[in-house]
Amino acid sequence: MAEDKAVTMVTCTAPVNMAVIKYWGKRDSELILPINSSLSVTLHQDQLKTTTTAAISRDFKEDRLWLNGEEADAGHPRLQACLREVRRLARKRRGSSTDAAPLSLAYKVHVASENNFPTAAGLASSAAGYACLVFALARLYGVEGELSEVARQGSGSACRSMFGGFVQWHRGERPDGKDSVAQQVAPETHWPELRVLVLVVSAEKKPVGSTAGMQTSVDTSPLLKHRAEALVPERIACMVRHIRERDFEGFGQLTMRDSNQFHATCLDTFPPIFYLNDVSRRIIALAHRYNAHHGCTKVAYTFDAGPNAVIFALADTVAEFVEVVRRSFPPAPNGDQFVRGLPVGSASLPEELLSAVVLEPVPGAIRYILHTKPGPGPQLLDDPSQHLLGADGLPRGSA
Amino acid sequence: MAEDKAVTMVTCTAPVNMAVIKYWGKRDSELILPINSSLSVTLHQDQLKTTTTAAISRDFKEDRLWLNGEEADAGHPRLQACLREVRRLARKRRGSSTDAAPLSLAYKVHVASENNFPTAAGLASSAAGYACLVFALARLYGVEGELSEVARQGSGSACRSMFGGFVQWHRGERPDGKDSVAQQVAPETHWPELRVLVLVVSAEKKPVGSTAGMQTSVDTSPLLKHRAEALVPERIACMVRHIRERDFEGFGQLTMRDSNQFHATCLDTFPPIFYLNDVSRRIIALAHRYNAHHGCTKVAYTFDAGPNAVIFALADTVAEFVEVVRRSFPPAPNGDQFVRGLPVGSASLPEELLSAVVLEPVPGAIRYILHTKPGPGPQLLDDPSQHLLGADGLPRGSA
Repeated sequence: MAEDKAVTMVTCTAPVNMAVIKYWGKRDSELILPINSSLSVTLHQDQLKTTTTAAISRDFKEDRLWLNGEEADAGHPRLQACLREVRRLARKRRGSSTDAAPLSLAYKVHVASENNFPTAAGLASSAAGYACLVFALARLYGVEGELSEVARQGSGSACRSMFGGFVQWHRGERPDGKDSVAQQVAPETHWPELRVLVLVVSAEKKPVGSTAGMQTSVDTSPLLKHRAEALVPERIACMVRHIRERDFEGFGQLTMRDSNQFHATCLDTFPPIFYLNDVSRRIIALAHRYNAHHGCTKVAYTFDAGPNAVIFALADTVAEFVEVVRRSFPPAPNGDQFVRGLPVGSASLPEELLSAVVLEPVPGAIRYILHTKPGPGPQLLDDPSQHLLGADGLPRGSA
Repeated sequence: MAEDKAVTMVTCTAPVNMAVIKYWGKRDSELILPINSSLSVTLHQDQLKTTTTAAISRDFKEDRLWLNGEEADAGHPRLQACLREVRRLARKRRGSSTDAAPLSLAYKVHVASENNFPTAAGLASSAAGYACLVFALARLYGVEGELSEVARQGSGSACRSMFGGFVQWHRGERPDGKDSVAQQVAPETHWPELRVLVLVVSAEKKPVGSTAGMQTSVDTSPLLKHRAEALVPERIACMVRHIRERDFEGFGQLTMRDSNQFHATCLDTFPPIFYLNDVSRRIIALAHRYNAHHGCTKVAYTFDAGPNAVIFALADTVAEFVEVVRRSFPPAPNGDQFVRGLPVGSASLPEELLSAVVLEPVPGAIRYILHTKPGPGPQLLDDPSQHLLGADGLPRGSA
């Protein structure tokens, strides 16, 4: 680290991840320790990523934070927890050498972060955000090694965004959370045919936030307790096996069942929490009709804490299924571009597929489809032109 | 029984019941033995009832059945099972006396049945229907004593319609089902202030039938298995206590939680089953806002295998809550009569209640409200003019 320069900064990117075995409920809300293990697919940063620049300088008077260009509260306890933990790791590391002065650990930090996707996509941006923050801070302070435990303390699912491909977040047993870490099950190159479609639903309003929601579920749902204790451990083991074997039938079936079970525990919460709306339910029914028509699992849906569907499919299914979605939810004629992200080929639908699968189209119910695939973990950007902060430590382009 | 007459007939009525601890899943689909006990409130026949005339004659050539004026298949296995069981009981009873010839047990039977409520109400008419059939056949053949076990073999929940007031259907342990019977927990007079509002939702289509649905749930939902084995027994005991103590707070809370848990197990079914739609969810949210405003449980919702809500409340809450529903779901100006059944007084809503509870009205989403209360069990009608069959054993008014 060149600590004699006025401002030292690094810029990194980090991915969004989508759980296929869901995390819902904390056993320790301070350390963010989950009641069960979870497993996710890291999505490719070409389509969905957070970029974060972190800077330190002896001239900074206070910690400052900018999110998507707007200044935000840098005193947020979760952000401060990540900062404290990274500094602690840095201190520990430097304790064993004498070549670096610990002075910079007392400097204030400036952080700027932005997403390349709209918040409207309803994808958990906090996971990518905290993963990116922790990755950038670690590079800034020269910290290496296990960082998912730190990211977890920013946002639980952020620990899974610290790796690419297929990632398991181990529940862990220790009260201090040292064993509640993420681990890569397989890299993104392991299953090159796997594709992901995000179906962005036109939602009327923001649903219950996941932090408040999961706490109410832990407090009131006997079904969630049973799921976490008795059902998830076996599901994790099965899902790891399906991924290792690239068994889409098994992977898809279990993904759908686990999404449904998560939403079932939300409904068993009191008062009940609903994240699926009538459009979500139509997408679920459509996926089942489509699979039934083909006689096997060609597409698998999963829903997080919102109405948007995430669909897994193999590459050779994408063009046909996208056309099925387009026919089932005809886009508004003057609306946004309907298919975004990776290219999607064209497909003509056989008459018997249309009549069996496409029933009662609902125009405009899906705003757009984002086509992506599994991708790598956080990246360091070498090109200084990509820093979000200028040499003065303030957002570029700001007055 | 006057067996020398050409046609012998009796006419009875039977009530609908609404489960507050839900039945979902059979352990024996032939005998209709449930995986858990359930508990229901019998609704008053002034608003909702089935009327059934059963007749026998040596002149009848075959069993015949008319439902709401339309001839239906009298060979239906469930109907034949009830007929067989009642005849068996009659034979058993007559076996101990010599004054009655068993000849009439071989006669063919004519049955006519009709409901005083439209099928559109989405209320399980099969419960009232089979309760009424069994009650009528028993009177026809002079059978007395425990009949819920027979009604259960027509339609599971029919056994609960064999009693008025508050009724528990015991799961039972025996493989032959002899101990899977209904029992009155308290008569309808026990809680005179209790009222019931059926909110009939404008539904787009018929949902998955409950017989097929519950079988899929038993086969695929691990949460249903846990609910039936580990959670329902304690819930039944609590609900009995709340009813005995006329504790509306406890009764209402548990009613809502159990409805939500039942629908959660439907969502955990694979493929998932959805009975609640967006309007159902708005009613749920409305009930929670209304209770939150009052700081206690004033209304409690429950939903069966469809989107219609059944609301329990005490008499002094009805006028206000009906007005809240009317403001939240403004009736179509030229629609049907919005409030039906028992009289509902008028109520003016305080401004702070309106602003806290009535958000974003959805015109026309509720077709009408039926106001009723707990009522008695099946009744024998003495007046021959009420028979649905004429002296010729055919429906009155038919050519």
